Amino acid sequence: MTEQTTTVPVGAADIGVTGLAVMGANLARNFARHGYTVALHNRSRARTDQLVAEHGDEGAFVATETLAELVQSLAVPRRVLIMVKAGAPVDAVIDQLVPLLDEGDIVIDAGNSHYEDTRRREAALAEKGLHFVGVGVSGGEEGALHGPAIMPGGPEKSYEALGPMLEKISAQFEGEPCCAWVGTDGAGHYVKMVHNGIEYADMQVIGEAYDLLRRVGGLEPAEQAEVFTAWNQTDLASYLIEITAEVLAQVDAATGRPLVDVIVDEAGQKGTGRWTAISGLDVGSPVAAIAESVFARSLSSQRAVREVARETLAAGVDEEAQRAPQDTDTFVEDVRQALFASKLVAYAQGMDMLAAAAEEYGWSLDLGTIASLWRDGCIIRADLLDVIMQAFGGRDTSRHPAPGTRAPGQPLNLLFAPEFAQAIAEALPAWRRVVGTAVAAGVPVPVFSSALAYYDGLRADRLPAALVQGQRDYFGAHTYLRVDREGSFHTLWSGDRTEVDGEGVPVVMPQPTEGDPTQD
Amino acid sequence: MTEQTTTVPVGAADIGVTGLAVMGANLARNFARHGYTVALHNRSRARTDQLVAEHGDEGAFVATETLAELVQSLAVPRRVLIMVKAGAPVDAVIDQLVPLLDEGDIVIDAGNSHYEDTRRREAALAEKGLHFVGVGVSGGEEGALHGPAIMPGGPEKSYEALGPMLEKISAQFEGEPCCAWVGTDGAGHYVKMVHNGIEYADMQVIGEAYDLLRRVGGLEPAEQAEVFTAWNQTDLASYLIEITAEVLAQVDAATGRPLVDVIVDEAGQKGTGRWTAISGLDVGSPVAAIAESVFARSLSSQRAVREVARETLAAGVDEEAQRAPQDTDTFVEDVRQALFASKLVAYAQGMDMLAAAAEEYGWSLDLGTIASLWRDGCIIRADLLDVIMQAFGGRDTSRHPAPGTRAPGQPLNLLFAPEFAQAIAEALPAWRRVVGTAVAAGVPVPVFSSALAYYDGLRADRLPAALVQGQRDYFGAHTYLRVDREGSFHTLWSGDRTEVDGEGVPVVMPQPTEGDPTQD
Repeated sequence: MTEQTTTVPVGAADIGVTGLAVMGANLARNFARHGYTVALHNRSRARTDQLVAEHGDEGAFVATETLAELVQSLAVPRRVLIMVKAGAPVDAVIDQLVPLLDEGDIVIDAGNSHYEDTRRREAALAEKGLHFVGVGVSGGEEGALHGPAIMPGGPEKSYEALGPMLEKISAQFEGEPCCAWVGTDGAGHYVKMVHNGIEYADMQVIGEAYDLLRRVGGLEPAEQAEVFTAWNQTDLASYLIEITAEVLAQVDAATGRPLVDVIVDEAGQKGTGRWTAISGLDVGSPVAAIAESVFARSLSSQRAVREVARETLAAGVDEEAQRAPQDTDTFVEDVRQALFASKLVAYAQGMDMLAAAAEEYGWSLDLGTIASLWRDGCIIRADLLDVIMQAFGGRDTSRHPAPGTRAPGQPLNLLFAPEFAQAIAEALPAWRRVVGTAVAAGVPVPVFSSALAYYDGLRADRLPAALVQGQRDYFGAHTYLRVDREGSFHTLWSGDRTEVDGEGVPVVMPQPTEGDPTQD
Repeated sequence: MTEQTTTVPVGAADIGVTGLAVMGANLARNFARHGYTVALHNRSRARTDQLVAEHGDEGAFVATETLAELVQSLAVPRRVLIMVKAGAPVDAVIDQLVPLLDEGDIVIDAGNSHYEDTRRREAALAEKGLHFVGVGVSGGEEGALHGPAIMPGGPEKSYEALGPMLEKISAQFEGEPCCAWVGTDGAGHYVKMVHNGIEYADMQVIGEAYDLLRRVGGLEPAEQAEVFTAWNQTDLASYLIEITAEVLAQVDAATGRPLVDVIVDEAGQKGTGRWTAISGLDVGSPVAAIAESVFARSLSSQRAVREVARETLAAGVDEEAQRAPQDTDTFVEDVRQALFASKLVAYAQGMDMLAAAAEEYGWSLDLGTIASLWRDGCIIRADLLDVIMQAFGGRDTSRHPAPGTRAPGQPLNLLFAPEFAQAIAEALPAWRRVVGTAVAAGVPVPVFSSALAYYDGLRADRLPAALVQGQRDYFGAHTYLRVDREGSFHTLWSGDRTEVDGEGVPVVMPQPTEGDPTQD
């Protein structure tokens, strides 16, 4: 950029933001409030002017008319943050930006892009000597303004010039920024996606607890608001529990009824939960609790099907089973423990898929540091995340395990950390009782029960997967492994039913004969 | 093709098959046995010669050296069936074939291709005036030779020249071929994929029944072989139940132990189940039972994690809970009913995702006809499929509902068909007892319990999705619908907590005032 075409100050701004809808505008204001000079650009100039008019006193803004002006206004290396709708609009902005930039400049995508798009874009820009950084941002509009959780990926080198700024505007947990470089190319968007998948499960288990307390425990929303407020003083303490109490306490002014009873019971979704479940399937990680929470939302939205189902499908429930089998306080505490255990499983599955993805995509992910980023600023922020962070060896932003491996000493599964293994052991009797009660009473608890099946599956001495392998060998000659020797084996099911090894050679077996002197 | 370069008879063969590994070879032999002249080609000539040498007496074969020779040998319109490894090898063969073909010729991919690849290839070949037909084939090696279930997609027009041949070599159920055109472009491979997804769930629920009968019922594999043989005389009658009895009866010659106890309990997968779960997520169909069966296989394969889990995770199970709560016969019958109900749900989910995919991809899918194809020849063949076919209005290969819709009169969900609604109503008490028993005993039943949650979710008057919508409105201003009026609404959670409509305009509500004369 050698030719100055406007009156915008050249090379003075610390960062440029293009896309000034509420998320972009709030991030820009957040930077400005922290003393950075922020260049602004939007496809239509009106939003830019509005931002400066309304919030110009919060810091130093440079309004620009075109992307060329925006780029011109930036100090080198240039940092341009894109906050536009995920998908084609991101590519369109990148295509316009790239010819305007110089080697070493940094392009930041802070939107909810799919990690595969981020991987593709990073590779393309790297060829031109540019840094492309996909950044996961969680915390909604308020978070963007006051301090979100920030999960940057991209080239580690880019973090030198970009990281300090992001750390400044992020949420702070006990003095530590909820921001750290998490890994190369799409790792930042991936970690954010898994955050959202966990969020889906966390919301669903709260919903299941609410449904049980209502339908079996007989607790009205206002009473439950008190229960959730009390739970927020236990190891469940979290933003989502806190706002659940607020939502349940809300009375609809128009009808005088609890607001939750006036809201149509169809849960929407924007796609990141679905992406998480799909990626879990892709990388072979059994994220069943997360997937069940996505399916629960889809099912809730099948309005026409549900209408017929209500009239067609039998309940098959004893009246007795619909009442809490214990006194209310005991039942409430049982549900709390079932909720806690199920939630832990959802987090364990999220962490497991991060490790599997690290292997699949060659990322160096430190699970302790990632957990540390979620302690504040984001939707799943919770006291629990500090404990999870500790379980993975605490926060250490300089700890970069070899791609696809875990840092030494980190447990193979979150549930193996002594404090969590112990917590689940204590919750287990209640968890089993609650799922049993729900099943008898006809209250759907897809995630409570899926999480319990996951737990019981993990710890099983033997799984019926052995039978499945036998079936697969029968109809597809897929072979099986044996517990007592190396190699693959196949039974000649449509032949004489003897066993052959992977090369089709009969397995020689000692055949005891009558009167064999070696037998006794 | 004007120039004859070899001595192969020109234009005489009915169909050409390229790719002569066992599936391709067996399909070729199947065609020949039904009186068709079959031209053969393989990348390495040796396989071709071997096939002719070993099975030349079964019918009329034409051995060819090159794809050009293969094409030359075919009658017009030419039919070339590709049976090579899914993925790049299919594209490679297509690229070689296309320049050799003329308008109106038919290229058939009978491998396990992903439906998106088939859609792409169909569109590319259509531009050149060629018919590309993705064909799902189920039944393994034996089926390919003796009569598989065949699910062809592609242009409907292509079925005139191809359909009669496929119908001849397919399995026949009471005189009707297990083959019919199912829909355009990738529909054939999609239907086959869903077949496999259902197969995963069917195998998993059999595994869960086995595990319960073993660990809670105390029945050894040999005793269970008798149970499954007896079950094969009930409405569970199916190929998979039949072979389960065979596998459970098998004694390992080397050890004298039941074979199922010698097989390593890690279930493999080739990917079609995973594809099914992913597509269910993509099209928004809640195929939780299918997904849980995929996750159960992934979990079983986490060997290192399971080893630690066995030593680390508490069981939390009363000794009493590990024994069957009823006499053995009653428990066995309970498990049978739970298995049947769970299996029905898996089929209902598979059918639901077919309908959702029809809408997504603009396919005309007739669910009755599709069910009819699975009555014989394929892995999930079962008496039940005839009943499912009837529930969707029977088989009618001329019934092509408008793309994305169901044929008139077909139920919105398989479970709504009167015979199935009734069957589940009868099974419900046992189903609830069995899941309750498993949960108390610590036996993982991810699909039994997921299927029950799906059922209870569908028929619920109200779902906690309303609370989820309230949470989403709280932290993300995602808005919600009201049960009592049109439009979207948002509560000003961080403001005065009044409600505004989608445009942010306060909802005007009657505010009763003290002493208002209209109140009483």
